[in-house]
Amino acid sequence: MHGLIGKMRAQPGKRDELAAILLKGTGGMPGCLSYVIANDPADTDALWITEVWVDEASHRASLQLPAVQAAIAEGRPLIAGFETQIVTVPLGGVGIGGT
Amino acid sequence: MHGLIGKMRAQPGKRDELAAILLKGTGGMPGCLSYVIANDPADTDALWITEVWVDEASHRASLQLPAVQAAIAEGRPLIAGFETQIVTVPLGGVGIGGT
Repeated sequence: MHGLIGKMRAQPGKRDELAAILLKGTGGMPGCLSYVIANDPADTDALWITEVWVDEASHRASLQLPAVQAAIAEGRPLIAGFETQIVTVPLGGVGIGGT
Repeated sequence: MHGLIGKMRAQPGKRDELAAILLKGTGGMPGCLSYVIANDPADTDALWITEVWVDEASHRASLQLPAVQAAIAEGRPLIAGFETQIVTVPLGGVGIGGT
């Protein structure tokens, strides 16, 4: 499996709007086992996105999906930047592919 | 929802053993929507654990479950320490409670 843990910073005051766009874009992504969008309660403009994919290729392919491309286009002006970006190798657990 | 993102450091060379213990302890935790254990490919002794719970109380209650207590007791000697520990407020996505 292929995992990502990332912190995204929204433009000031735009986090809710950015999160809503990202949430719309996450359905129907082949190979996506988990994709969680979360607020950082200690950092008003920050979102954490944690992802688990079958493999790196499925994540890369998702970036070409029309719904994802639309979310990227709509969300990009609301993003101030990316901070933490960690690649992981998920081993297992709860909530990935129904396990 | 209540989320956690944490980086745990195993004693040198003990990561696989620690991960196996943690994976055994994650079944049947009421209120647990996601619990993913992952290797950090850039840091040989590090694990990332990302969690989504219905609420903070369900996470706290899980620490008293016999299987979790057993995993904590078995794993503790293999843990060198905790590094990153982030609390989040998950908003939604894929792989949490079947959504």
